[in-house]
Amino acid sequence: MSNLNQALEYAAQNREKLLQEYKEFLAIPSISTLPENRGDVYRAAQWLVSELTRLGMARVDLIETPLHPLVYAEWLGAPGKPTALIYGHYDVQPVDPLHEWHSDPFDPEIRGENIYARGASDMKGGLMAWLKAVEAVRSTGDLPINLKFILEGAEEIGSQHLPEFLENNRDLLKADFVINLDGQIHAPGKPSITYSLRGLAYFEIEVHGPKQDLHSGLFGGSILNPAQALCELIAGMHDADGRVTLPGFYDSVRPLNAEEREMLAHNPQTDAQWLEMCGAPGLWGEKGYTTVERTGARPTLEVNGIVGGFIGEGAKTVLPAKASAKISMRLVADQDAAAIKGQLEEYLRQNAPDTITWSLHEHSHGPSAIMDTHSPQMQATVKAMTDTFGVEPFFRRDGGSVPVVGMMQQTLGIDTIMIGFGLPDDCIHGPNEKQHLPTLLNGLNTCIRMIDYLGDI
Amino acid sequence: MSNLNQALEYAAQNREKLLQEYKEFLAIPSISTLPENRGDVYRAAQWLVSELTRLGMARVDLIETPLHPLVYAEWLGAPGKPTALIYGHYDVQPVDPLHEWHSDPFDPEIRGENIYARGASDMKGGLMAWLKAVEAVRSTGDLPINLKFILEGAEEIGSQHLPEFLENNRDLLKADFVINLDGQIHAPGKPSITYSLRGLAYFEIEVHGPKQDLHSGLFGGSILNPAQALCELIAGMHDADGRVTLPGFYDSVRPLNAEEREMLAHNPQTDAQWLEMCGAPGLWGEKGYTTVERTGARPTLEVNGIVGGFIGEGAKTVLPAKASAKISMRLVADQDAAAIKGQLEEYLRQNAPDTITWSLHEHSHGPSAIMDTHSPQMQATVKAMTDTFGVEPFFRRDGGSVPVVGMMQQTLGIDTIMIGFGLPDDCIHGPNEKQHLPTLLNGLNTCIRMIDYLGDI
Repeated sequence: MSNLNQALEYAAQNREKLLQEYKEFLAIPSISTLPENRGDVYRAAQWLVSELTRLGMARVDLIETPLHPLVYAEWLGAPGKPTALIYGHYDVQPVDPLHEWHSDPFDPEIRGENIYARGASDMKGGLMAWLKAVEAVRSTGDLPINLKFILEGAEEIGSQHLPEFLENNRDLLKADFVINLDGQIHAPGKPSITYSLRGLAYFEIEVHGPKQDLHSGLFGGSILNPAQALCELIAGMHDADGRVTLPGFYDSVRPLNAEEREMLAHNPQTDAQWLEMCGAPGLWGEKGYTTVERTGARPTLEVNGIVGGFIGEGAKTVLPAKASAKISMRLVADQDAAAIKGQLEEYLRQNAPDTITWSLHEHSHGPSAIMDTHSPQMQATVKAMTDTFGVEPFFRRDGGSVPVVGMMQQTLGIDTIMIGFGLPDDCIHGPNEKQHLPTLLNGLNTCIRMIDYLGDI
Repeated sequence: MSNLNQALEYAAQNREKLLQEYKEFLAIPSISTLPENRGDVYRAAQWLVSELTRLGMARVDLIETPLHPLVYAEWLGAPGKPTALIYGHYDVQPVDPLHEWHSDPFDPEIRGENIYARGASDMKGGLMAWLKAVEAVRSTGDLPINLKFILEGAEEIGSQHLPEFLENNRDLLKADFVINLDGQIHAPGKPSITYSLRGLAYFEIEVHGPKQDLHSGLFGGSILNPAQALCELIAGMHDADGRVTLPGFYDSVRPLNAEEREMLAHNPQTDAQWLEMCGAPGLWGEKGYTTVERTGARPTLEVNGIVGGFIGEGAKTVLPAKASAKISMRLVADQDAAAIKGQLEEYLRQNAPDTITWSLHEHSHGPSAIMDTHSPQMQATVKAMTDTFGVEPFFRRDGGSVPVVGMMQQTLGIDTIMIGFGLPDDCIHGPNEKQHLPTLLNGLNTCIRMIDYLGDI
């Protein structure tokens, strides 16, 4: 397009405005998992509707679902040019433990080069980069590609109403490729593109013992404590080599071949850096794999939460009636996310003693994804990133799950480009989530260039 | 004494008054473990001070401690007669889970033959029985024995300031025997006397992994999840035979001889009744022992509470920074309660992986106790019970801990008689705690007779 330099100049001139609007968006506590924040999630959707309207999209819809609304927008004024479907989410994770935050998670605070707020990195920052790129291009000329937006408010809780919407709106969402804004890069000076994501299956196990909490002195030793039983079940879910023991768990895992292990070995992330970022006493994981492989190319099982009995201050001599755990698995190609529940049920059937009862609830599941690194849109993205950062991005696998990538592939039949400008140490989902501002501004310029280069494919 | 029949008649005539005062006492939420109830605990102590003053005790003191106050009272107007030191506690356990109560735990409600309230059975009922027995005797004649009362407000949290008070007040508390009101009987028509109690050692274990909660997708599989590590540690604390694996745990346990096993086998409690009371899917416990032995004569280890990660509604994909568990052991003669911490530390040192760190805090510990079933005061108690219930009580071991029994033995050098009129299914420490009212009235008459018969020894 003729106006690339003017658009980049517009972005440079309007940084303060971008920052103000970003802060405004971050201040909305759009926590999708908490019923008390439902109104805030709705407010975030309305904020996007007015922003997209202001950007001159030809159509902007706020679409109700049984839970949180979807926002759809389109501008199709470039006939014959590619159509990009922009996917993003405007919901965020809960903020607990709140006392570990150094500033209010919904009162964004800039300290040094970072802005601290829940959602700053995951992913209100990425959304802002793309919206402001559209603004920069539109303010200085015409869009050289067609745009559709589908933005959801339930990504952090499993996108449960999105699949049905995709199924029922294949024509509306017809596009040449998806741009998914939920990515990250490796480091401020080391851009990367994620070409593989892990799937997710998230469960809650409840173990029941006595009909109600009992006195642990009077009854202790005569019936099995459900918290002990739950611990034994969880302990048995890994073997001594750090492998998950659910029956059939690894059966369909696509093995890493030598070529891909070689490519992954080029990831500049060192174990020492990783350990420093975690702040744990040491690394751990499945025997026979590197840390990069363990987090990107191998499936895992984690306890996300566990609770049972008396958890207040002090001591209570109780034998609890029940104990429960939230447990989730990260999955890789070609594991079937829907099949994991059966494997977990089978494990519980085989291992739970008959002196307790158990129940299993699936919160959500989503597929893993692998993307084509050689497509023209991927190559346009590589060029936009290279021209912005001054260095070519490397390809990497990500440990997190972006189930919508697999969903788009399965339902709409189109591939995704993952972009994003968060960093691995942004503490997404944890306390003190941050976004590195110089990287976000590079992200804005990358998005402006992408719009340009994608118009040429 | 000459007024036994009049005293029993007084008790019969004043049941409604007893019930009203009992309800008033139960309405005070004297939960000792919760800081927010500290004022209520104090109020319960003041209630006792005015009650004991009204009963004509010659001296009544409210004694401050760093936590909850002690109440001391005495009447020494029967020179040459035995002196009984009455021990009781006026504090209660927390009430959670509150939603499982069918009525307000601090608004006592009578349903059928039972009164429902926190503390109804443990042990405001027993206290009322003794206080009203003193009232009945004093209202109709003279007390034939000397009485001292020591009532505490921190029994449910380990009586931490009582040992020092006992040490420093040996002369004040000088008595011929202790009457401890914290007992139970087997069933309304089957009275029993507890001659053995388990000791208690109560700990909190905290396991730390990463410096803060991490995203379970990005980091999962590369560091050890502290909730998983805690589960593995807890799972390892029992072997396949239900035995506790802490090093040295059983070394000093006094074995059951054939004679005592024979005596315990006369306990009319059947496994079917026990299971019905627990409402668990099945019985469980240390291999080679009966249920009566497992709960009375064998040491145990229980998880009283466990928590880590996200425990709210819904799903959060977090790898928690830490997880913790409250774990307590019930001990039997001749285990050293103070030595258990070392055994647990040794277990953690041997079994905790170096990819997490752990810390251990001891909430409290208290000794086990075995009482002489042939002493004159025990025989007077047997007779008072037999004459009231119309059937001779049997001797039994109790699984609960009443550390003060061992403390009194060690510090004051005097033996204890345990009495009490709660029932095993009273749900003490759990929701819907109750007291069976006809049994409490039998308890009142037993106490009146005890005062009489103890005057003759």
